[in-house]
Amino acid sequence: MAKINFAEKLTKFNDLWSPRVVAEMNDYQFKLVKIHDEFTWHQHEDTDEVFIVVKGSMSIEMEHETITLDEGEMYVVPKGTVHKPFAEHECHILLVEPRGVVNTGETDGELTAENNVWV
Amino acid sequence: MAKINFAEKLTKFNDLWSPRVVAEMNDYQFKLVKIHDEFTWHQHEDTDEVFIVVKGSMSIEMEHETITLDEGEMYVVPKGTVHKPFAEHECHILLVEPRGVVNTGETDGELTAENNVWV
Repeated sequence: MAKINFAEKLTKFNDLWSPRVVAEMNDYQFKLVKIHDEFTWHQHEDTDEVFIVVKGSMSIEMEHETITLDEGEMYVVPKGTVHKPFAEHECHILLVEPRGVVNTGETDGELTAENNVWV
Repeated sequence: MAKINFAEKLTKFNDLWSPRVVAEMNDYQFKLVKIHDEFTWHQHEDTDEVFIVVKGSMSIEMEHETITLDEGEMYVVPKGTVHKPFAEHECHILLVEPRGVVNTGETDGELTAENNVWV
């Protein structure tokens, strides 16, 4: 396999809230996502979810607290935790989660993205 | 849990080739490591291993090729692949691997670090 350069991969798509797989490790996937404005409240019943900010800043709203992440910061949303990501300005993030996880979790809707799309 | 700021965590230790766990996701761990010069040839028989460069640059020598990674680049060493990381200048990296993985894999030696040390 080739190495992955995040900045280079991010030049290859512009749609928001549409995760692009850049690598797999065992049965986990690393996905780049461009986000802006509000996502939908959702949860993942079977897995934790890792957010790493590659560029910009974002927040993760949860029931009892809101975490704000800047570039070079990471957060693990525990499994089963209802959360809503949002970004005031466009933000580029790296997600880590098991293969097969749907972006909107248990909350199917218009923001549900096709799964397993590579870039 | 709190968010993780990689730069802030990296101020908390200086020893080389000694992974520090910063987060867990399911049964996987995210570990920061400071590296300089050569590591030992080794392999992990049961798992892929993710390298992400946070600061500086490094190389991963393998039997048939050598991959050089700069800041913002990532590589997945496939399981069972003999590899030797090295860095001409000090480099700071983020590793992702299952809980319990030993840094020197199947090659126990003086570079084998204590496992599961958090920072």
